[in-house]
Amino acid sequence: MSHNSFGHLFRFTTWGESHGPAIGCVVDGCPPGIGLSEADIQPFMDARKPGTSRFVTQRKEPDQVKILSGVFEGKTTGTPISLLIENKDQRSKDYSEIKDRYRPGHADFTYDAKYGIRDYRGGGRSSARETANRVAAGAIARKILGDDIIIRGAVTQIGTSLIDGDQWDWDQVSQNPFWCPDAKAAKDWEGYLDNVRKSGNSVGAIVEVQARGVPAGWGAPVYGKLDSDIASGLMSINAAKGVEIGAGFASAGYTGVENADEMRMSGGKPEFLSNNSGGILGGISNGDTIIARMAIKPTSSILTEVQSINSKGDEIDVRTKGRHDPCVGIRAVPVAEAMLACVLADHKLRHRGQTGN
Amino acid sequence: MSHNSFGHLFRFTTWGESHGPAIGCVVDGCPPGIGLSEADIQPFMDARKPGTSRFVTQRKEPDQVKILSGVFEGKTTGTPISLLIENKDQRSKDYSEIKDRYRPGHADFTYDAKYGIRDYRGGGRSSARETANRVAAGAIARKILGDDIIIRGAVTQIGTSLIDGDQWDWDQVSQNPFWCPDAKAAKDWEGYLDNVRKSGNSVGAIVEVQARGVPAGWGAPVYGKLDSDIASGLMSINAAKGVEIGAGFASAGYTGVENADEMRMSGGKPEFLSNNSGGILGGISNGDTIIARMAIKPTSSILTEVQSINSKGDEIDVRTKGRHDPCVGIRAVPVAEAMLACVLADHKLRHRGQTGN
Amino acid sequence: MSHNSFGHLFRFTTWGESHGPAIGCVVDGCPPGIGLSEADIQPFMDARKPGTSRFVTQRKEPDQVKILSGVFEGKTTGTPISLLIENKDQRSKDYSEIKDRYRPGHADFTYDAKYGIRDYRGGGRSSARETANRVAAGAIARKILGDDIIIRGAVTQIGTSLIDGDQWDWDQVSQNPFWCPDAKAAKDWEGYLDNVRKSGNSVGAIVEVQARGVPAGWGAPVYGKLDSDIASGLMSINAAKGVEIGAGFASAGYTGVENADEMRMSGGKPEFLSNNSGGILGGISNGDTIIARMAIKPTSSILTEVQSINSKGDEIDVRTKGRHDPCVGIRAVPVAEAMLACVLADHKLRHRGQTGN
Amino acid sequence: MSHNSFGHLFRFTTWGESHGPAIGCVVDGCPPGIGLSEADIQPFMDARKPGTSRFVTQRKEPDQVKILSGVFEGKTTGTPISLLIENKDQRSKDYSEIKDRYRPGHADFTYDAKYGIRDYRGGGRSSARETANRVAAGAIARKILGDDIIIRGAVTQIGTSLIDGDQWDWDQVSQNPFWCPDAKAAKDWEGYLDNVRKSGNSVGAIVEVQARGVPAGWGAPVYGKLDSDIASGLMSINAAKGVEIGAGFASAGYTGVENADEMRMSGGKPEFLSNNSGGILGGISNGDTIIARMAIKPTSSILTEVQSINSKGDEIDVRTKGRHDPCVGIRAVPVAEAMLACVLADHKLRHRGQTGN
Repeated sequence: MSHNSFGHLFRFTTWGESHGPAIGCVVDGCPPGIGLSEADIQPFMDARKPGTSRFVTQRKEPDQVKILSGVFEGKTTGTPISLLIENKDQRSKDYSEIKDRYRPGHADFTYDAKYGIRDYRGGGRSSARETANRVAAGAIARKILGDDIIIRGAVTQIGTSLIDGDQWDWDQVSQNPFWCPDAKAAKDWEGYLDNVRKSGNSVGAIVEVQARGVPAGWGAPVYGKLDSDIASGLMSINAAKGVEIGAGFASAGYTGVENADEMRMSGGKPEFLSNNSGGILGGISNGDTIIARMAIKPTSSILTEVQSINSKGDEIDVRTKGRHDPCVGIRAVPVAEAMLACVLADHKLRHRGQTGN
Repeated sequence: MSHNSFGHLFRFTTWGESHGPAIGCVVDGCPPGIGLSEADIQPFMDARKPGTSRFVTQRKEPDQVKILSGVFEGKTTGTPISLLIENKDQRSKDYSEIKDRYRPGHADFTYDAKYGIRDYRGGGRSSARETANRVAAGAIARKILGDDIIIRGAVTQIGTSLIDGDQWDWDQVSQNPFWCPDAKAAKDWEGYLDNVRKSGNSVGAIVEVQARGVPAGWGAPVYGKLDSDIASGLMSINAAKGVEIGAGFASAGYTGVENADEMRMSGGKPEFLSNNSGGILGGISNGDTIIARMAIKPTSSILTEVQSINSKGDEIDVRTKGRHDPCVGIRAVPVAEAMLACVLADHKLRHRGQTGN
Repeated sequence: MSHNSFGHLFRFTTWGESHGPAIGCVVDGCPPGIGLSEADIQPFMDARKPGTSRFVTQRKEPDQVKILSGVFEGKTTGTPISLLIENKDQRSKDYSEIKDRYRPGHADFTYDAKYGIRDYRGGGRSSARETANRVAAGAIARKILGDDIIIRGAVTQIGTSLIDGDQWDWDQVSQNPFWCPDAKAAKDWEGYLDNVRKSGNSVGAIVEVQARGVPAGWGAPVYGKLDSDIASGLMSINAAKGVEIGAGFASAGYTGVENADEMRMSGGKPEFLSNNSGGILGGISNGDTIIARMAIKPTSSILTEVQSINSKGDEIDVRTKGRHDPCVGIRAVPVAEAMLACVLADHKLRHRGQTGN
Repeated sequence: MSHNSFGHLFRFTTWGESHGPAIGCVVDGCPPGIGLSEADIQPFMDARKPGTSRFVTQRKEPDQVKILSGVFEGKTTGTPISLLIENKDQRSKDYSEIKDRYRPGHADFTYDAKYGIRDYRGGGRSSARETANRVAAGAIARKILGDDIIIRGAVTQIGTSLIDGDQWDWDQVSQNPFWCPDAKAAKDWEGYLDNVRKSGNSVGAIVEVQARGVPAGWGAPVYGKLDSDIASGLMSINAAKGVEIGAGFASAGYTGVENADEMRMSGGKPEFLSNNSGGILGGISNGDTIIARMAIKPTSSILTEVQSINSKGDEIDVRTKGRHDPCVGIRAVPVAEAMLACVLADHKLRHRGQTGN
């Protein structure tokens, strides 16, 4: 059952609410003998953590990961790795007024409909804070995948502003607060997002993640398809509303001739002349770069007043004060990378289990 | 493990290759006491089956489902329901020449990379023929969901031609061979697809599925999200390259104010004034219509010659003769409906299991 | 979910009722490239099938297995293997009178309590006929394990008559209709069982299964323990009431000194001087022979009248006519072997998945 | 995948080693709205914890459980419940000398064979300390089951000394340090175990657990059988070597007439006149008391010297100093109760999911 767990052979289970004492995850199925310490995980945590620029939430969380089990004398032992991240900056007072109010776009109403009870502080379990666990698990997944597989992501669109794909430069991604691979777009986004933020509004984004170096043969027919698991993983990220692989929705408008990724031999190895497939055919990796994109809706917490109801069925107006990201898509990049890493680590082990390779 | 199974409490497992003696599926977890016979399933099979118009493959398959277990005196018994569909029109000779050839866009290369062996006849396990099983399982899922939940789908785009959303008329969907809800677009598509077909080419499509009447509260945080499972289910369909929920990728371009689905009370019940969320918030249904869309790439089997390699590493040109759909997206509609039905049936039982409701 | 499926990486799902048109199973996760045909499976089916001696049920079933998928040109392809076994000798008339009657020891009452409906013919889903599927899946599991792992079983007790362990001779097992490894006991059992049968009664049995050649290292802490999975697998066999590993229940009476399986080196390899552990320590194989035993209760279908109730709540007396095994434990041997083989095949793949070995 | 998780709808995942900073578990799938605090769990922890009498290990652990998530304002929210138990009395020095030594009966050799690395301190992951998590999860399971279902256990045999079943008095169980339901046997065991302990030896035990008040209908065919899951759960407990249900191994020696649990009506409800089935027929509860028994081998850590090898392949003699239980079976009672509770809670939810009851 997959309520709060993800993956099969490489499987992690997360727990924790935004304003509880801590959040954490248990990573099961990690191969033994892999060098692992908090230092391997922390850089990815730092990349996701809030408060790093004016374009993300100002909640201050060090997001320091502690490894509580599964590692001995610097190496994984093959037993479950328990990771703990304390909540340091909860400010529960900020949230008391939303106790009975259903913020549009949030899970307040649906959690109540499902459970009849919810920890309303900061969104409780539905808070994006949960994604810190994914990043931690993803760091372990990267260790399983090894250095030959490069997983990285970027923001390709914020609101109505797109990057110029021809200007894509991976080195730019770390040079701006937006994970933007296009230097000029990054500059534009500063002013754009400042306006959005100041107007008490928010915008959506599109995030692209890639995995280079994945060998052909990972994945499985037909409900364990690599793209199916990537879709599941990315869509489980807070605020995700769409996932596509390779050419994705654009491929609907292509002809078969345009869409065919033709093959030739190159240096004795198969080569694809284009990558509309996003590196996956029939649910199985083809050796080309795996490319996935996801759409993130605009932050639902906005200062602008919107109509809603409360838990008693009264009609109310809601204006969500607090420390919100003007564009949650930005901080989704390391989360999306992590989910891709976890899917791939799982399929590496699954492939090895079935085939021995 | 989910290689050839889908779902948890309502779970089906499929088997079979395009050119074996039969395909089939085993549906486990169906509640007992539900009236079920082949007649409940067959209409959905007929809607998906090939050969019904010149716009789909001319392979002739009656796709007659046989129930081999799990039903007694017209009612489900709660034990596994085994469904069998014989392959009647295999024509294996058609495929002998592709034995060693990797058709671009197909799973030939990746299955070989993974398994080192494949049943190459008609795509074997990767054939869209497998989807007949999904439709059969989906028919059972609909029985579990009951008559108050309406699941239906339509094609909203073929190649570069989109419907006019304002002309959407569900009654039109059964009036044309394209599942098109816009009468005028349907008419345009006839000529458009004839041209595509005659030029030895193919096109992609976008399919939209909706579920009306789903109560608020189904789904689960955070890796068992309803949208995550829908994404997984739809992306597992052959040729799918993208999935979106509600406003989907468009929501990336929205502001928070535009995207907010405001709430009011209506007749004593909560009502959403818009449905950008596609009926799902925080992974849980909100009572509004569930809306999902998927992108289907153009049929990879085309008469136009494209460059490829064979299993020996020789560079070759491939031209795929045979009985192919000029747009596989058309026949994907009942399959997408079925996957949505299966996800919902599973979550109905999962929700009931955890909460008793 | 494991209602009608068993295993994880090597996983089979069974379906079918005693008196439906057929039973079958779908085996998923089999490695590719393994030579497999019906001829590999049939000998195990024949060993389990009814009607082979006067000591087992006289129902005549050829139990001919058909492979419907997953094998191509004599080799497994890595895709699901669907196996079908037709029911040939159903005689539904025999069972009509038990429609509303709860036979003591059978699942009649509990199936009704659970589902409110049941296929009462021949026990329906709860019939021992289901175990034919396990034997078929087990034959595939043996192929995965390879020839170096020898799995075999024997009956060590029938009713109150035990074998003499010192007389254990594996060659005897196939020389008598009881799978008895002790020639003298086998002779005694003939008369003993004839008496039981003629008196309209039945007896229980103990079955022992062993797996020789399993390398050290298979299994997993702590809920995926090899012995835990063996216990689950054997206890799922019809009429099983107990499972033990190695010294089993006897070890409760041992001291730590008596129970310790001391180790020495032998030919450069670790060797255990005794095998009270049954080849498993901490849930992981230790390289010694794996030994498990299960208790099978006496056949519940007996000609002697016993008190019961019917579905209306009337008190009745039940005398079960029909073609019953005087000791179902006898035919449980190939089933127990099969379950052990399936557990081991699953763990072989799981171990390989996690560790690469 | 079930390596370190147990259950399906009610599912817990444990982590932690004997000598790490803490151990813990994550309980997923708990229904919402159930009153829960540490005070509900702690009494069960105290019953299992070490150091309570001279007949169990003298390690001093308060085993104080902290709830880190999933409970809000005293009630479960339906989200994962994370439980943490700190290790307070590790004394790592005690264990440094066994670093390379394989203690007979322990998992030292097999963990090394599997993983090539292990946390050798106190047995690491294979330590019985892990079972504290099970007890915590079991306490939550009991809350799900409600007060009408009574789960309790007792020791029925220590070494070669059995209780007199006719003297069974549940009130006695808490009156002696052995969970013994027979006052006279409890008295005998004091001297018996003192001798065992002083001689540097240990003994095994048999533990019986019962669940009264379970309604008919829980469980599932055929690999989700209630007894199959109980067997799996009990066999996963450290040092367990056998599991039986109802009459268990004794039923092998019964005739069908002796073994039949006849039925009558009593007060308008079905009643069984005996309970050889242990409350389970065809894998489904029949409404009678569920009875399971497990065999626990003698503590492997003994002061008496036994032959073994080390990780370099040298032959050595091992004498295990430290704070060991002379009979680990004693402290297994609350663990076995907890596992039974967890299996039942899972099946309660599974049954409700499928049938709505």
